Amino acid sequence: MFQTFEVSSQPKQGPPRLKALRAVMAQQGFAAWLTPRADAHQGEYVADCDARLSWLTGFTGSAGFAVCLQDQAGVFVDGRYRVQVRSEVDTDVFTPVDWPETSLSDWLIGALPEGGKVGFDPWLHTITQMQELRKAFANGALEMTASDNLVDQIWTDRPAPPAEAFTARPDALAGESHADKRARIAGALRDAGQNCAVFSSPDSIAWLLNIRGSDIPFNPVPLAFAVLHDTGAVELFCLPGKASAIAAHLGPEVTAHDLAGFAAALGALTGTVRLDPATAPEQFRLLINADIAENPDPVLLPKARKNAAELAGMRAAHLRDGAAMTRFLAWLAEEAPKGGLTEIDVVKALEGFRRQTNLLLDVSFETISGAGEHGAIVHYRVNEQTNSPVRAGELLLVDSGGQYNDGTTDITRTMAIGPAPQGAAQDYTRVLQGMIAISRARFPKGVTGGHLDALARFPLWCAGMDYDHGTGHGVGAYLCVHEGPQGISRRSNVPLEPGMVLSNEPGHYRPGKWGIRIENLIAVHIATPIEGGDDREMQAFETLTWVPFERALIDTALLSQPERDWVNDYHGQTLTKIAPLVNGSALAWLTSACAPL
Amino acid sequence: MFQTFEVSSQPKQGPPRLKALRAVMAQQGFAAWLTPRADAHQGEYVADCDARLSWLTGFTGSAGFAVCLQDQAGVFVDGRYRVQVRSEVDTDVFTPVDWPETSLSDWLIGALPEGGKVGFDPWLHTITQMQELRKAFANGALEMTASDNLVDQIWTDRPAPPAEAFTARPDALAGESHADKRARIAGALRDAGQNCAVFSSPDSIAWLLNIRGSDIPFNPVPLAFAVLHDTGAVELFCLPGKASAIAAHLGPEVTAHDLAGFAAALGALTGTVRLDPATAPEQFRLLINADIAENPDPVLLPKARKNAAELAGMRAAHLRDGAAMTRFLAWLAEEAPKGGLTEIDVVKALEGFRRQTNLLLDVSFETISGAGEHGAIVHYRVNEQTNSPVRAGELLLVDSGGQYNDGTTDITRTMAIGPAPQGAAQDYTRVLQGMIAISRARFPKGVTGGHLDALARFPLWCAGMDYDHGTGHGVGAYLCVHEGPQGISRRSNVPLEPGMVLSNEPGHYRPGKWGIRIENLIAVHIATPIEGGDDREMQAFETLTWVPFERALIDTALLSQPERDWVNDYHGQTLTKIAPLVNGSALAWLTSACAPL
Repeated sequence: MFQTFEVSSQPKQGPPRLKALRAVMAQQGFAAWLTPRADAHQGEYVADCDARLSWLTGFTGSAGFAVCLQDQAGVFVDGRYRVQVRSEVDTDVFTPVDWPETSLSDWLIGALPEGGKVGFDPWLHTITQMQELRKAFANGALEMTASDNLVDQIWTDRPAPPAEAFTARPDALAGESHADKRARIAGALRDAGQNCAVFSSPDSIAWLLNIRGSDIPFNPVPLAFAVLHDTGAVELFCLPGKASAIAAHLGPEVTAHDLAGFAAALGALTGTVRLDPATAPEQFRLLINADIAENPDPVLLPKARKNAAELAGMRAAHLRDGAAMTRFLAWLAEEAPKGGLTEIDVVKALEGFRRQTNLLLDVSFETISGAGEHGAIVHYRVNEQTNSPVRAGELLLVDSGGQYNDGTTDITRTMAIGPAPQGAAQDYTRVLQGMIAISRARFPKGVTGGHLDALARFPLWCAGMDYDHGTGHGVGAYLCVHEGPQGISRRSNVPLEPGMVLSNEPGHYRPGKWGIRIENLIAVHIATPIEGGDDREMQAFETLTWVPFERALIDTALLSQPERDWVNDYHGQTLTKIAPLVNGSALAWLTSACAPL
Repeated sequence: MFQTFEVSSQPKQGPPRLKALRAVMAQQGFAAWLTPRADAHQGEYVADCDARLSWLTGFTGSAGFAVCLQDQAGVFVDGRYRVQVRSEVDTDVFTPVDWPETSLSDWLIGALPEGGKVGFDPWLHTITQMQELRKAFANGALEMTASDNLVDQIWTDRPAPPAEAFTARPDALAGESHADKRARIAGALRDAGQNCAVFSSPDSIAWLLNIRGSDIPFNPVPLAFAVLHDTGAVELFCLPGKASAIAAHLGPEVTAHDLAGFAAALGALTGTVRLDPATAPEQFRLLINADIAENPDPVLLPKARKNAAELAGMRAAHLRDGAAMTRFLAWLAEEAPKGGLTEIDVVKALEGFRRQTNLLLDVSFETISGAGEHGAIVHYRVNEQTNSPVRAGELLLVDSGGQYNDGTTDITRTMAIGPAPQGAAQDYTRVLQGMIAISRARFPKGVTGGHLDALARFPLWCAGMDYDHGTGHGVGAYLCVHEGPQGISRRSNVPLEPGMVLSNEPGHYRPGKWGIRIENLIAVHIATPIEGGDDREMQAFETLTWVPFERALIDTALLSQPERDWVNDYHGQTLTKIAPLVNGSALAWLTSACAPL
């Protein structure tokens, strides 16, 4: 199993560790010490050796930070983790703080005497984060002081960093050689009068060099840093040996160096050095002696615009994954109503069906398997303590995905187990209408996800309903399942461009009752002109995900004719595409699930 | 008639005037002289004495500017005026320039030798405009030089400025005394540590002091400047005598001063002076010796959020105007199919029906009456040269509004004259579906018009269609029919708030065939909770406009059930509200126009 279910947090280990940290803080004159969830790469997941926040406090959430003083210690968590944090930390010594409602700077100013020294590890905080803190403390209220990591000094049994070798990604899957990519981005640097760019985001490095890694869970990225020169040459910094096996792939223009030399290499850079302050560690700013140009990571947009080979891979991965999902849903429809299944059984079965493809490299995130009221917890992750039975008469929300060599999937389906509860079909249908609206949208160039978001919410809004998360996030091609800069939410201000892959996942949540979310992945393309339409180029979405919806939850009376036509067309295409990949009871289930409404 | 139809432009007068201007430019050492359409108040219309651009060049459009050099003269106009400008200026001496595609600074740099002196009247350009020009010329390419207006020096028969007296707006219509408004805005200044605010926007001054004027066409605003002190006291600067009759209304805290003393008064301000660089003349910056705080006009948002009395007035004005529109549409349905009517006849008839209310104070803009292919010209204004017959078998687009003491209206209806042309009903219905979507929208706090805009376009987008204008603009309460900052367009980033009034006017245009636009005014309010909806506060739109749609152009097969229900409910309410205000053939027409679909 890629996914595990043990309760990993051990709240009782927090107090002695906090005590040890305070002793080191006192020795070195720090009034406060910051411990973020992040590592130097600012990704969604961290390796065990970088899990300082959970080691120190017990809190295992995917975002947050601890601020330790001598007399108190705050654990800052956002709305997703307000309940979870209380079961994971010893609240006798750690105080959960509502973040971002309470800002770090305000909390520190309230808690410390003026001029107090606030210590931080400059590898673990971005330049932007530090700019904001320095601004807040500009009046001399507190002093931010960079330091070697104090937690590492007391973490005597800290795990070794991941040592597995990087792998090369064939040009056939990448669709563009890394030489061409390097030349392209180097050209952009020259056009901007910049001599090099420093990369700290592992997925940018993965894309630029056509490599992958297995250093952190779920995201196949290489933990490394890289410097791209305006000549197209790249210096790759990683632990010794990780890049040895791919030397031929990297070629003479890409040289691998020991990570230990990275700081010195930054110091030796000359001319104008480009970095992205939103992701680059503050340490870059401290080490670089050359001029710094603060610009967005130049790989972000090229990586977001998938090329033909990447899209072909994504399509293939989605057909394979759709067949696995179909087998899973057929099994669930057969087994769940009998009773006896738990949420964990569901996760295990689904991973099993994906493994049967023999091509599953990882799950793309921990499957959310939420039965009944657990479905209403948007970021629910089942473990042995929370594991609940899947009961007839309830809904089951399953949000999952797979990592395959040719692509990354992310799909949510919500099922009625046995008879649907009263009112669920109306809720489900409105969520489905929102998903259909995004799927059907055609839109001119320049339109952003911020402009489209309301289309997904309108059917819910009209019934006085809404959901408190975005409608869609960017998705990588055998890379991170959450990828920027594209997205579909009120805050998304990046114009959608051909090749961008996004999730389309409206939802609705009735606390204490159920949660509903329906998610397909979609890719932006140039729309085929419509007879009778204007003489103007428009963009539209290609659907990548082919898995039936829950017909028992579709209230056809709520659907307009175009919506009904869309569902029937989607189910018709699903049957055509997936039927050849399944057989027996799965095929029988698929056929019936895809029948016209 | 408020509206006139003569062709006012006289292209032949341009060359001698340009010659005279060049002589003055040469005397005073200017290599270039800027002549904008704007006056010092940056509104949509200018008084005759401020119509320098049309006097000099012949171009009568509502936006643009001329740049005169010794060897050439560019007339910069946007997409709306590319055709019109060529018939209004003598193209032997004036060169139309596509703006904003060609920027003023680029054009000047290309046309003049380095260091050339570019003259401008600092009353007629905003601080923001000048900041941008100075930035473009920062390398010394050209020198911007403020000067007395050179056009005024050669315009020997320049009309006198408008002298009509300002009028007081009763508290019953304004809903808040000007003392309370002044105290409220003065409080905001004190909170921001500002000692006064200088106002140059006539509608801000109109709102702040509960006054109106008749200085420019269509917008009942007073041409004046004002300084609001943090005490709540106001100094009002205008031509002598204009404020005499309202002295009692203004009271002791608001003192009227001769406009001639305004420059000196600006120079005498102390402390921190707030002004809005987007609308304040560059001259303010040159005259003020105190510290300047560049902030949005503090009246903008309070003015946009209409209070209960203003909304009641808007509702009453719309019922009255709806009855006039109903009489007009009944007349049109009877007369137009017979043939013989022209676009001008339609405008005159409509103004006549509005005048029959005995309460029409002005039209709120020049009625757009576009028959057949003229309907596809979004900003079409009929004159004696362009006037066309209204033919059976064509569509007629009529966009119009009235100014009443209690409110401002703006409505567009598109009618089939006789039998509808092939395909028109499908286009009309899609436009209507967009208008219905905005009308039905419910949305949480924080949502902007930029988020909602796509709802109006979605039914068109799905058919490969779109329109090249915003979906809605803000509307004043017996003030300007185009009012910021609220709006519904991709660029609208102002959260919608209760009381804001907007137009809802999607459209579609088939060049050479017809134009379709359907427009109601709507007001934001807190939505009534819906049974079964979430426990969250949402906002929604109240419809203000009650006039039937063109049922001959509604393809009911395209409507979803909620859309059909909405139209039937709208028509039902229209009948209930308007039937008591009309009789005879108008009532008969209304009854049949409002029958359920």
